[in-house]
Amino acid sequence: MEKQFYNTTETKLRKFTETVFLAIGCPEKDAELAADVLVKADLRGIDSHGVARLSGYVRLWQRGRLNPTPKPHIVYESPTTATVDGDAGLGLVVAPYAMKIAIEKAEKYGSGWVAIRNSNHFGIAAYHALMAVEQDMIGYAMTNASPLVTPTFSKERMLGTNPMCYAFPAGKYPPLIVDMATSAAANGKLEIAQRKGAALPEGWVQTAAGASSTDPHELKKGGALLPLGSDREHGSHKGFGLSATVDILSAVLSGANYGPWAPPFVAYLEPHPQPVGQGLGHFVGAMRADGFRPIAEFKTHMDNWIARFKQAEPISPHQPVIIPGEPEQQAEQQRKQEGIPIIEDVWMDLRQLAIQLAIDCL
Amino acid sequence: MEKQFYNTTETKLRKFTETVFLAIGCPEKDAELAADVLVKADLRGIDSHGVARLSGYVRLWQRGRLNPTPKPHIVYESPTTATVDGDAGLGLVVAPYAMKIAIEKAEKYGSGWVAIRNSNHFGIAAYHALMAVEQDMIGYAMTNASPLVTPTFSKERMLGTNPMCYAFPAGKYPPLIVDMATSAAANGKLEIAQRKGAALPEGWVQTAAGASSTDPHELKKGGALLPLGSDREHGSHKGFGLSATVDILSAVLSGANYGPWAPPFVAYLEPHPQPVGQGLGHFVGAMRADGFRPIAEFKTHMDNWIARFKQAEPISPHQPVIIPGEPEQQAEQQRKQEGIPIIEDVWMDLRQLAIQLAIDCL
Repeated sequence: MEKQFYNTTETKLRKFTETVFLAIGCPEKDAELAADVLVKADLRGIDSHGVARLSGYVRLWQRGRLNPTPKPHIVYESPTTATVDGDAGLGLVVAPYAMKIAIEKAEKYGSGWVAIRNSNHFGIAAYHALMAVEQDMIGYAMTNASPLVTPTFSKERMLGTNPMCYAFPAGKYPPLIVDMATSAAANGKLEIAQRKGAALPEGWVQTAAGASSTDPHELKKGGALLPLGSDREHGSHKGFGLSATVDILSAVLSGANYGPWAPPFVAYLEPHPQPVGQGLGHFVGAMRADGFRPIAEFKTHMDNWIARFKQAEPISPHQPVIIPGEPEQQAEQQRKQEGIPIIEDVWMDLRQLAIQLAIDCL
Repeated sequence: MEKQFYNTTETKLRKFTETVFLAIGCPEKDAELAADVLVKADLRGIDSHGVARLSGYVRLWQRGRLNPTPKPHIVYESPTTATVDGDAGLGLVVAPYAMKIAIEKAEKYGSGWVAIRNSNHFGIAAYHALMAVEQDMIGYAMTNASPLVTPTFSKERMLGTNPMCYAFPAGKYPPLIVDMATSAAANGKLEIAQRKGAALPEGWVQTAAGASSTDPHELKKGGALLPLGSDREHGSHKGFGLSATVDILSAVLSGANYGPWAPPFVAYLEPHPQPVGQGLGHFVGAMRADGFRPIAEFKTHMDNWIARFKQAEPISPHQPVIIPGEPEQQAEQQRKQEGIPIIEDVWMDLRQLAIQLAIDCL
């Protein structure tokens, strides 16, 4: 049974989140930016990546694994590429810093690409990719993450849910945004099934021995998430390949920890004792659409693409085709007006956090 | 039952393929390059994209839809981006032309990105991406294709199998190459099932009405391929999103035909009477690995990544983890030594082609 929801407003949630980041020592501008990234996730309906993670960041800080006053800086550079060291800061702050560099390079040369090392969880990839879209650029953002996913044929957790995001500006339509975990299902979906006490569909997780499972608690028993495609026959080697691509661009290229070395987000698990790099890694990029054709032409054809795909003949008349990014766009419109629902567990978690940091409750 | 195989050598196959391209009027250098791309597919075990397609290219030429003497040229450009018009030539020739431009830009600025319009089928994406890898760059290649795949919730064929390829140089190991159709299964796998008279696994195709099917002949009955993920519950919206990304980068960005307007590869189907662009589209890119960290460091960590993933604990001791690109690499080594097997249908098709063009048989 789904538990009770509490309702809050964007303004209140933003204020509370900022106050939490200020309380752990973040400078005002960083606290504001980090809160903006998290609240954007809650607004867009990606509840697993919003304030539900707030206490997780605080615990990382308590364990000395998160620097609240980082000085991110470029450590390696060419005209259109760079590597940024995040100085163990919040990914929520470091990734936008890196994306700004990518955008500046793109303004000058047509494209810009930045790999980031020594960072932490960066929130929703779409936030960073959308920074490029606002400049009429195509935005890329990806990150590696705590190892929870097995390669095809393996029972060992080797990869994170490693999301990749591509975002395209359109004309009269909102941007088209592909923002997806490269696993069959993201962790957030398992949490929903846990709260409902429901079985998972086959193909999301496997047991510690590598057998098929529908248990939403399988990860706690040493099981693992499966790559997109679920099994070899349905293309799990493709999901593994995409996840590998994210891991290599984010971490091998930047000098972060990759594969099973990626540091865990949860503070109760220790990072690998013999790291192969520094912190988590991300990869962001920006490409001017008008580096390829006049921007008005590009937007006209983006609108035509979207309009045509919305009209693609549906299997059921009650379920038309959904354009990538459309549900999040609709959630954002709705939640800006009607408020943001917070589930009971997260609400209680935020209350605890307020008490612990001696700040006002949400 | 699988039909008989004929065995040929790389040298013979290359010579024959070149002669076919010369016979339809390609200049010598173009014929050589086009043959190299096709034979590379056969060497790497991707038989569906090698000489099996040769008569298809010839039929397109016979219908006046393929220009054997194209003058590909840049129509739009920034320091690190460009759009190339393929002049209705073979994608096998146009894509390497575009990739050379991307590599030149990357040499100068760190990265280079080229969108291509007015082209035709470009063979295996990995061929083009590997051109960058040979220069110690990360290679990207993708293409849109004849509409055969439905978006999630639709029964209309709107997208091609739209492959994407990412290729990374390594040190002592061969390059890591992710080269994948963004559909659950590529067309070539359906053809294998047809020859065997075997049922397909569920989740590869659906009927014209959008119902689940295991019939390997479903496409001829108006059915469609499904996106990677197969159904909504297993992430088909992600496969759709990836396919959309390939379509937009390849065709909306370049000015080619996108979505249901993409021209069919088979000559018996006419292109759309009201095109939204010119020909098929591709997108290629090159990024210097040493734009992010010293190349020796990058390669050391690529080797470490590969070595660690090869050792990932297998579910069965008889099936270790496969690194993306490894099977193709092994096929290439083996076929260079032992020759290339050609199935009976293709062998007969090539004989017909030889007679028709009045050239020596393979």
